[in-house]
Parts: sequence; structure tokens; C-alpha cells
Amino acid sequence: MKQEGRPVRIVDVARAVGVSPSTVSKALNDSGSLRPATRERVRAAADRLGFVSDAGARALSMRRTFIVGLLSTDDVGRFSMPVMLGAENALTVGEISTLVATARHDSVREQHHLRTLVARRVDGIIVTGKTTDAREPIRVPVPVVYALAPSTDPDDVSVVPDDAAGVRLVVDHLRTLGHRRVAHIGGRADQNTSRVRLAALRDALDAAGMDLVGEPLLGEWSEPWGRQAVDLLLRDDQAPPATAVVCASDQLARAVTDRLRERGLRVPHDVAVTGYDNWEVMWAASRPPLTTVDMELEQLGRRAAERLLAEIQPEPPEPDAAAGPGTRSDGVGPGTRSDGVGPRGIELVPPRLVVRGSTIAGD
Amino acid sequence: MKQEGRPVRIVDVARAVGVSPSTVSKALNDSGSLRPATRERVRAAADRLGFVSDAGARALSMRRTFIVGLLSTDDVGRFSMPVMLGAENALTVGEISTLVATARHDSVREQHHLRTLVARRVDGIIVTGKTTDAREPIRVPVPVVYALAPSTDPDDVSVVPDDAAGVRLVVDHLRTLGHRRVAHIGGRADQNTSRVRLAALRDALDAAGMDLVGEPLLGEWSEPWGRQAVDLLLRDDQAPPATAVVCASDQLARAVTDRLRERGLRVPHDVAVTGYDNWEVMWAASRPPLTTVDMELEQLGRRAAERLLAEIQPEPPEPDAAAGPGTRSDGVGPGTRSDGVGPRGIELVPPRLVVRGSTIAGD
Repeated sequence: MKQEGRPVRIVDVARAVGVSPSTVSKALNDSGSLRPATRERVRAAADRLGFVSDAGARALSMRRTFIVGLLSTDDVGRFSMPVMLGAENALTVGEISTLVATARHDSVREQHHLRTLVARRVDGIIVTGKTTDAREPIRVPVPVVYALAPSTDPDDVSVVPDDAAGVRLVVDHLRTLGHRRVAHIGGRADQNTSRVRLAALRDALDAAGMDLVGEPLLGEWSEPWGRQAVDLLLRDDQAPPATAVVCASDQLARAVTDRLRERGLRVPHDVAVTGYDNWEVMWAASRPPLTTVDMELEQLGRRAAERLLAEIQPEPPEPDAAAGPGTRSDGVGPGTRSDGVGPRGIELVPPRLVVRGSTIAGD
Repeated sequence: MKQEGRPVRIVDVARAVGVSPSTVSKALNDSGSLRPATRERVRAAADRLGFVSDAGARALSMRRTFIVGLLSTDDVGRFSMPVMLGAENALTVGEISTLVATARHDSVREQHHLRTLVARRVDGIIVTGKTTDAREPIRVPVPVVYALAPSTDPDDVSVVPDDAAGVRLVVDHLRTLGHRRVAHIGGRADQNTSRVRLAALRDALDAAGMDLVGEPLLGEWSEPWGRQAVDLLLRDDQAPPATAVVCASDQLARAVTDRLRERGLRVPHDVAVTGYDNWEVMWAASRPPLTTVDMELEQLGRRAAERLLAEIQPEPPEPDAAAGPGTRSDGVGPGTRSDGVGPRGIELVPPRLVVRGSTIAGD
């Protein structure tokens, strides 16, 4: 973070306190043997002068506040709340506190929050979004990890749900049950989530030798749309064209079970239905309860926190001697999932299939 | 906050820095004219020694971090999230950041969070809950305001939704529409929310000369219960015993409209239905959309923040000259709602009635 004019350097802090630059470095690094009073004078001066290291100087001034910022662009919280809880949980274990800031899709507000978080000298920032649509990266002089909504910059660390894997779990489940003709009802066509899930559905059906019946029905993330989509699917026919409907959310799936019942069709006997989200409010209200995919958002938040901690305080590299044949000497490779370690770019969090009455009859 | 052994006093800080106690006081109060370097040395020493004022010394050491703690006992977030957003919004205006800590109904975790918040020297703490059930007060050496779930201590400041007023709005609305016989479907009987709303319903119906039909049907906060309650209400009769059903949540009301329709009754022509919460997921999915009560939870969060700020930095009393006849000289009285000022105890936040198709036919 640069001041107006030129950035404050270590030598500026040293001059203000009347000590050597190496003393400043020791004080801010908590290293070397200094009198506590000296260390405090240096820190106070660094605060007063607004000394914040840029990326190059960061390693030198590894001075942690044990506070992490959590910037949410979401004003609703249904998706970002579990992510936040998971992150907070992981951070609490490390004795780290969480400063929250919600931007509410307002870029001016977001900038204000970022300035505040940097001024508070947070050790790092987790950025969460409402959807999995990629977002512009934020520019701050501390480590950042993106959760749920990935950064458009492939060099950033982003942790997102593996929606393609979730759809594959659903298709595999339906295939096992003998379904061959599947319809799709989804939400907003312009969202990344919709595109990813539909593409994964086409691929998985192809691979399984199953058919996508008719055009995918994309509309809104609402129950009225789910009910309307069923009417579009059934048109004037009595017999449903598909034996299973894969829905892109539990809200849609719940509406689909309602409307199918109203049209005289039994779930799952005549038509099986699957949801997405494992949202209890919806899966439990559905008749029958929904088979669905849990995105493991709390686990996603936990991973984001672990990745951030690894960025803040990198682990020393593993000794080469311990590495087996073919293991990269830095201990990091694609798919590596040990604490906090992983390649930069997008890390996918595996989802979980939850089977209930909307695909398998209870009686 | 006391150290192990005796508490650190201002004179201890003064001795450590080599200045007079009044200089320490000025430095920590940001008052008087001191050299910045002196102020910083005092602050650093106070930090190092762990000087934290107890309630009596608080006024002397009014040294603010401009960080407020938000402790949530809620693990779900549907109610506490808007409260948090409202509080954060109000705090952001005052350039105050929010540290969050979620206890998840775990008292050990709550104690851990409280110790951390105090160690971080937050200016104050807002405690939010999942329900309006009163909770034991927390014991910390900084100001505390309770939001949603009030403290059991009447000397604490608590800000809660005015559920009785909400129910009165509903009854008044139904009375205006000509309803005289009303049924009630609610959630868990052991919760404060259920007791308050039912008592208010009985009172309001009595006052309006209307009847509560049969026993109130209390069960769970779920759609399956809402549907089941309709079957209990209708029994084997074709004609409904009431012309309106007052539900204690939108989730229940939505299930009630579903089940009434399935039983061949039209809403609102045969039976009007009202909800509570103004939860879009439910009111918008209901056929027809729900007339409901909005608890104004964001406003509640904002008020909690304003009350906390007033506790942290009390306004100077109004000059007596400006006071009219009968006005208390401290400018504080029941019903006073100007910024942050209000009597201790419970402040009720007025709700808002939202009228939609479940009570008034759109065509």
C-alpha cells in the first residue's frame, strides 16, 4: 500500500526512530535481540508513518496482526454465510480473528472496505461472492484468496465448488437406477453456474449413453419458474418425455416435484427429480424429500482459510530426501491437498451426493 | 480486564514510560497537547503491560480501537445475517470495523471468542442470537448491546423486534377486511417468539371483538407441520371453521396456502392467510404471494450499533435551557429514538405490514 507521493521505506522508519534500518527490520520481524522498548518505538513509528511493505518488502517486515479480512460481495448470505463460517472456524483454530466487510455489489463500497482492511494491517483477505461467476482481482499489498467466486487472474488462488463433479454424481446415480432419458431445468442462463452444470450434464450423459430430452429449460432461480418449466416440459402430453428431471437448484427441484404432482405424476415412480445445494428449507419441504448435491461450502471456506494462511506464512520446503521417485522437490503438485498447500489457480472442492426419496422410493 | 495478580494501573504505565500519570491519561484519551512520540510511547507501554481499564477506569482511558465485536450464537444466519448487515452498515459510516465471532450455541466457544475480542481491545460488543429467547448476559469490561435475543438483565441494553405490534398490524388488517373468526398456526411452543405472538393475538382479537377459533396449533417451524396443521384444522369438515389463518412464519403460511389449495379451498376467497418474516423465498413461492410482517431486522441491527456507539462514547447532556416543559433534563425518556439515545432495558423495533394476494384478491 503506497502513501500519497512515494512509499514509506524502512530507512524512513529508521530515521524517525533514530536507529539503524536493520534494527527496524528486526523489530518488525520479531527477530534478533532488541530491548522491548526499542521494538515498540519502531512499531509505533511504522504505524504513525503508515509503513506498509509492498510485495517485495513483505518478507522483510513479516509482522502479523493475526487478523484476516473477509470481504463479501453478497448481500443475501445463503451461499457466503457457510463459506464464512467454515473460514472463521479454521481461522479461530489458528487464533486469528476475522474482520468482515460486505460490499453489497457496490464497487465504491468495496474499495472503501479494502482501504480500511489494509489500514488495519490485516494479514490477508478472503474474498467471497454470491455466485461462481469470475470476478476482477482486488489489488492490495497482502495475500488474497478468492472463495466461491474465482478471480479472473489465473495466478491468484481461488477455491470454488466442483459443480461438474456434482453433476457427474447425479448422472451416475440416475444411470444406476436405470434412467436413460433426462430433462434439465435450470436457473439464469447468463450465470457461470448454469453453464458449468449444463455442459457437465451433456458430457456426463454422453459418456453414460443417456439422452438429454429436448432443450434445457433455463429461466430464473425461483419456484414459479420451476413450476412453469414443468408445464413447458409436459406441454399437452400426458406422458412425460423424460424419466428423470435434473434441476440446477433445490428451489427449482422442489417446485418441480410440486408441479409434477399437480399434473398427476408421481415422484419418483413416474419421474425422478434431483436438486442441487442440499438446502434443508427446500429438500425437507419437498414431497418427497430431495436427492441433491451438497457443495460442501463450509469445507470450501475452510480450504480458503488454509490456503490464505499458507500464503501468509509459507511452510518451509520439504527436505528432498523424503521425496519418492517422481515427486516434485517442492512438495507441491496438482491435486495436492495437504494443509494449505496447492498450486495457484483454481482449487475445486469435491461435492457430495445426498440420496433421498425424490429418486428412490421409500416404500 | 484484570491481569493475573493485581490489575495494571495508570501509575504502572507512567512509571514504565517515565512520565506523569496525567500524561498517560492524556495520551490514552487523545486529549491535551503531547508530542506524538510521547503519545506513542505511552500507548506502546500500555499495550505491553496489558493495561485495560475496568468499568470505573474506562472513562479515564477512553482509547478506542474503532473495532467492534459481533458475537453471533446463530449457526444458520437467516435472522442474524440481516441484523449483522444493518449493524455493519451503521458502523461503517462511523469508520468502525467489525470483528465477527460465531459461537454456534457452544458456550466454551463463546467464552473463547469473548476473551479474544477483549484481548483485541474492541470498543464494544454486539451479541446476536437466533431467536428472541432471552439469554444470560456476557461479562466483559466493554459496553455490550444485545440484538434479537435480549439479555435477562434489565439493566442491559437489548434491541428486539416488536412482535406484539406485528401481530396487532395483522389483526387490524384482517378486521378491516371483515374477518371475525381466525385460526392460529405456529411453530415451537417452547419459544419466546411463539408465546409473545400468541398472547398478542389473543389480546388483539379480544380488543377487536374477533374470535380465536379452536386451540392454537403449535408444532414445528417447518412446511410439513404447516400442512399437517391445516388437516387438523379442517378435520373431516368441508367448510373451514375460520375465514382467516394467522401463521407465525412465512414458511408455515406458505405450506398452509399449499395445503388449503390441495383441500379444495381458495386463498384468499375461502380462507385468507397471513405469514410473518417477509422472507422472499417463501412469500414469493406461495400461491398467492403472502401478506406478512417484516421485522425490519436490518433496522434492528442499525439500532443496536447506534445504541452501542452511544454506550462507547456518550453524548454530552443537552443543556437544560433547550428542554420544554415536562422534558426530562437528561434528554432520555421512553420512546426516545434520536441517534443512539434511549433508556436501558429493551428497545422494541417497530415492524411493517406487507399486504399481498393471500389476504386481498388481485383480480
